[in-house]
Amino acid sequence: MTYCVGLRVDEGLVMLADTRTNAGVDNVATYRKLHIFEEPGERVIAIASAGNLSLSQTVMGFLREGLPREEDGHIERLQDVGTMFQAVQLVGRAIREVYNIYAQALEDSRLSFEVSFLVGGQIKGDDMKLYMVYAAGNAIESTSETPFLQIGEHKYGKPILDRAITNGIDLYDGLKLALISMDSTMRSNLGVGMPLDCLVLREGELKAELVHRIEPGEPYFHDLRERWSSALRAAHMAIPRPPYKPK
Amino acid sequence: MTYCVGLRVDEGLVMLADTRTNAGVDNVATYRKLHIFEEPGERVIAIASAGNLSLSQTVMGFLREGLPREEDGHIERLQDVGTMFQAVQLVGRAIREVYNIYAQALEDSRLSFEVSFLVGGQIKGDDMKLYMVYAAGNAIESTSETPFLQIGEHKYGKPILDRAITNGIDLYDGLKLALISMDSTMRSNLGVGMPLDCLVLREGELKAELVHRIEPGEPYFHDLRERWSSALRAAHMAIPRPPYKPK
Repeated sequence: MTYCVGLRVDEGLVMLADTRTNAGVDNVATYRKLHIFEEPGERVIAIASAGNLSLSQTVMGFLREGLPREEDGHIERLQDVGTMFQAVQLVGRAIREVYNIYAQALEDSRLSFEVSFLVGGQIKGDDMKLYMVYAAGNAIESTSETPFLQIGEHKYGKPILDRAITNGIDLYDGLKLALISMDSTMRSNLGVGMPLDCLVLREGELKAELVHRIEPGEPYFHDLRERWSSALRAAHMAIPRPPYKPK
Repeated sequence: MTYCVGLRVDEGLVMLADTRTNAGVDNVATYRKLHIFEEPGERVIAIASAGNLSLSQTVMGFLREGLPREEDGHIERLQDVGTMFQAVQLVGRAIREVYNIYAQALEDSRLSFEVSFLVGGQIKGDDMKLYMVYAAGNAIESTSETPFLQIGEHKYGKPILDRAITNGIDLYDGLKLALISMDSTMRSNLGVGMPLDCLVLREGELKAELVHRIEPGEPYFHDLRERWSSALRAAHMAIPRPPYKPK
C-alpha cells in the first residue's frame, strides 16, 4: 500500500509520499515513491507513484529513458517537454505503453493493472500544475476549488485536508497538514510507513526549495504526532456528552 | 453507501447508523439501517446493515419471519435464540439463504453480492456481544483488544476511534466519539447522511437505555460538529511549522 498527497496552493506545491511497499504483510520493503526531475531555473517535475511497484517502476523507466513519438520516432522525455500539460500527457503515454506490455499477462495471473501517479511542478514559461494520473493514463488537474490530490490509501487522511487546506495557506503549514494526514493514515494502515519523502516548490522559483526525507524517530515529526494525539484527546474530552434522554 | 459503528465496552454497547441509501448519486433515499429486536428483561438484539439494500432488507425479512431448521423444519427466529452466538449464526444462515436465491441472478447482471451486518446485544443468561457478519455469513466478534467494529464506509471515521475508544470509556462518551467518527465520514462521503439512529444498551440491563434518532439540525449534534471543527483547527494551528531547511 502507499499514501501520497500533493497540495497546489497560491504559494506553490507540496508533495509528500511514504516509502512502504508490501506484497502481503510478510514481504515489506522500502522504496522511494517521490521522484524529482529537476533542472534548476528551467523545470522541476515531481512524480509520486502508487499501485503495483513493478508497473510504477517501469513507467518511471520509460519516463527517464524516453518514449518514441509515434509519428516520427522522436524520443520524448520529461526533460524536454515544454509544459506541464505535455508532461502529464507523456506520463499517460508511458502508462499505456506499460499496459500494452503487461496487462494481458497480469490478467492471466488474475492480477489487475493498478497504478496511479501524482505529477506536479513547473516548467519555465508555464504555470505550476498538479495532476493525478489514473491507470488508463487519463488525468485530472488540481484547481483552486480542489487544492489537493491523493493517491493510494487516501481515506484515513482526507478529513483533515477537507477541513484545513485552502489556497491561501502557507507552504509549510501545508506540509504540516500533509504530515498530519500521513500520520492518521499510518496509524490505521500498516501498509503505509516511514520514512517519508517531501518536496516544497515555491511558485515561480523553478528550483525545489525543500527536498527532505523524514526518517523514523525524527524529532519534529515525532513531536507533531504527539501533539496531534494530545490535541485530539483534549478536543473530544472538551465536547459535552450527548444529552439524549432514556426513553 | 452507509456507515455504521458499534462499540462493545465494559459498561455496555453503543450502536450508531446513518440512514442514507443511494443507487448512484441521482437516486438517494432514507432507510432505517439500525433494527432492534427487544423483549425487555429477556433480550435486546440490535442489527445494523450495510451493502445492497434489497439484500439487507431480505435478510431482515427472514430474521423477522424465521428460517426453517434443516434437520426438522423447526422455525428459528431471533426472538427465540438462547445466546448471542446463536443469534449471529442465524443471521449468517439468513445471509446464505438470500445468497442462494439471488447470487446467480445478480452475477448475471454483473452485480456483486455485497452485504454486511453488525449484530450486538444481550440475551438473559448470556454475555453481551458485538459481531460483524460478512457477506458469506461468517462473523468476527469484538473483544477487549478491539472494542469497536464498523461496516460500510469505515475509513474516514476510523482514526478517531483508533485513538480514543478504550474498554473503560463511559457509554455516552462512546456515543460522542461515534458521532465524531460519523461526522468525519459524512463530510467526506455524500453517500452517508442524516438522520442518524443510535442505541445505548447498558451491560446486564436487558432493556435499551436509549433508542434515539438524530434529525438534521438537531442542536447537540450541530454543536458537536462545530466544536470538533474549531478544535481541529486550533489543534493544527498550535503545532509549529516544519523546521526542515532548504537544501
